[in-house]
Amino acid sequence: MSFSLPEGFLFSSGTAGIKASGKPDVSLALAPDGASAAAMFTRNQVVAAPVTVGREHLRRSRGKIQAVIVNAGNANCATGAHGVRAAKVVCSATAKVLGTDASHVFPSSTGIIGVLLPFEKIVTALPVLIASANAGPEAFDKFATAIMTTDTRKKIAAAEFVFKKKTVRLVGAAKGAGMIHPNMATMLVYLFTDVIATRRELQLCLKNAVDQSFNNISIDGDTSTNDTALLLASGKSGVQFKSVRKQFAAALADVCRSLAEQIIRDGEGAKHVVTLKIQQARSTAEARQIASAIANSPLVKTAWAGCDPNWGRMLAAIGYSGVKVKPDHINIYLGNQQICRNGAAHPFDKVHAHEYMKQPAYDIRFNLGLGKAKLDFLSCDLTAEYVHINADYST
Amino acid sequence: MSFSLPEGFLFSSGTAGIKASGKPDVSLALAPDGASAAAMFTRNQVVAAPVTVGREHLRRSRGKIQAVIVNAGNANCATGAHGVRAAKVVCSATAKVLGTDASHVFPSSTGIIGVLLPFEKIVTALPVLIASANAGPEAFDKFATAIMTTDTRKKIAAAEFVFKKKTVRLVGAAKGAGMIHPNMATMLVYLFTDVIATRRELQLCLKNAVDQSFNNISIDGDTSTNDTALLLASGKSGVQFKSVRKQFAAALADVCRSLAEQIIRDGEGAKHVVTLKIQQARSTAEARQIASAIANSPLVKTAWAGCDPNWGRMLAAIGYSGVKVKPDHINIYLGNQQICRNGAAHPFDKVHAHEYMKQPAYDIRFNLGLGKAKLDFLSCDLTAEYVHINADYST
Repeated sequence: MSFSLPEGFLFSSGTAGIKASGKPDVSLALAPDGASAAAMFTRNQVVAAPVTVGREHLRRSRGKIQAVIVNAGNANCATGAHGVRAAKVVCSATAKVLGTDASHVFPSSTGIIGVLLPFEKIVTALPVLIASANAGPEAFDKFATAIMTTDTRKKIAAAEFVFKKKTVRLVGAAKGAGMIHPNMATMLVYLFTDVIATRRELQLCLKNAVDQSFNNISIDGDTSTNDTALLLASGKSGVQFKSVRKQFAAALADVCRSLAEQIIRDGEGAKHVVTLKIQQARSTAEARQIASAIANSPLVKTAWAGCDPNWGRMLAAIGYSGVKVKPDHINIYLGNQQICRNGAAHPFDKVHAHEYMKQPAYDIRFNLGLGKAKLDFLSCDLTAEYVHINADYST
Repeated sequence: MSFSLPEGFLFSSGTAGIKASGKPDVSLALAPDGASAAAMFTRNQVVAAPVTVGREHLRRSRGKIQAVIVNAGNANCATGAHGVRAAKVVCSATAKVLGTDASHVFPSSTGIIGVLLPFEKIVTALPVLIASANAGPEAFDKFATAIMTTDTRKKIAAAEFVFKKKTVRLVGAAKGAGMIHPNMATMLVYLFTDVIATRRELQLCLKNAVDQSFNNISIDGDTSTNDTALLLASGKSGVQFKSVRKQFAAALADVCRSLAEQIIRDGEGAKHVVTLKIQQARSTAEARQIASAIANSPLVKTAWAGCDPNWGRMLAAIGYSGVKVKPDHINIYLGNQQICRNGAAHPFDKVHAHEYMKQPAYDIRFNLGLGKAKLDFLSCDLTAEYVHINADYST
């Protein structure tokens, strides 16, 4: 992938010794003074210390963030008062080197739950991290790599567009998917752009983009304690958000959708990426609720693993989704082939359907006959490998 | 198990040729004229034809049921108008032999979804079924056996108590657990008693018993399209419900709890039965919601499969259950050993915890620190075998 990074940001990564593997485990992003930030967090009530501290710093700094410091290998979750103190120490130490207030530093953690964060290791690594930060694409690559835990590959997406001969750039890095590993938590997403925007403009735009991407994917239905999506705007493109509102929103949504898809493709043990095309719903919210019920049903997910066109299980999941439906209005299609008609059996070529489901990625379309809203929702199958990965772990 | 059946009922079973295995697949229960009935059904909006017809017959007959006819091997679900007609034909044919109205016959089906019910096979089997019905314990045993689909063993429970020298008896038979097989649906429960009761008395009592048993278990979180619990009272004990209200309610709840536990023990691929003891909740409803979130988390269930005392995953599931909790008030115990204190890590003997979780059945206790309500909820682990059973099926 070849792309240019947005102007104004510096990146670096290092090895603080938190991951048992000895792989790089701290990432740093630096933004110019005055950069704006917006963020979205997990809806889980059990939240990790960095989420608590990150929220507080965004509030105190009024959305002005100059540094993002991420560690992988330890989630700093369920660590009580010690955890909050640890996250604050890391931010203060970073701020001190940069000559700013701690509230301008945004912390993130991902990894094992319930183990005290060895914050002094991060503090020790900070000076080199900060000194080595640079604007090169390799530095960004390393930033995206060091935030990984059980991910098998780094997840990066970029977009750009031109306005009056000036280029606005966006880039994002992500890790994980829901809670995808024993004691390992978290989807972390960092988005960087050089548009000129206030935190309020960014916040709304981020919310919409997340609704169109990360809120439309599910691997196992578990909600992490650390989920964070952060959007930073340096303003260095010289282009005002107001002038490019629509283009920027579309580009941000594209980047988020690409990252979301990369997360699903890297889902633990997943052999098939399934796009649920929910159509003729009353609203997007209802479409999402139905898609979630289908995507989180162990019976549906195991049928996908077996390439079994078992429409009865999907129909049943729609029936218990909590959305008021008309069962005899529901039509289900595997690609172009209809497999359920008006909520009942419909003759179809089973060999062809089985072959279709052997593909690494495919669509299932649901026409609900209720309204005009639609939604694409990405999920994956539940394989014996998922069970092995998550059961064979020993605390 | 040795027990006496309640007075007034006759049972039989037969082989109509619906199960591909050639095993017995139709069960019949006959009640005396005037017997009262109450029922509870699946909350899934996608319901099988026998549920639709059963509801209608209970309404039309004002809860007077003389015969229950169950077939296994075909759920008669997602079968459109044909399915409703098929269920009605079976009821009419039964009613004709008995010399009563079709509305006094209650139909049930369990098995594959989306395949038309070969109702003529059931109709052909009816005369012998009815002629051979008798009050012996073996007949009840066969009734309980022929309703099985993927169950590995029949599920029977009984209770009795004496009131003024007269004995009131209850017996129940059940099959399945949620949706436990490819295209196979359904938990079916049939309860018989000889108390004298109106349908309203039975209905409230049944609702309470179901709330204390079948609503407190989960294998995979999927809700079947055919779930039915039917309670029939012959009145032949000569004891009025009003005189024994409390004793009867307790006995019915006992029978239902025993059946619910037998269902969980027979869960597909399950190696461990886990009782979630939710304590200090604000209400039973909230306790159930929290227990469901824990019991339906694939990450929690796979940890159980690996005998991994992974309290972080359980804490996270509580956090996203939708119930307002105080994370730092939560204490978690594996038997007598505390593994999470005030929502944070607590030192514990990991070897002992691992050994404890190797038991086929054990408790995990959650003290929420919110109120005084409590609930025991039964669940089981998610094993690779569950995936194999449900994925390796080919339509």
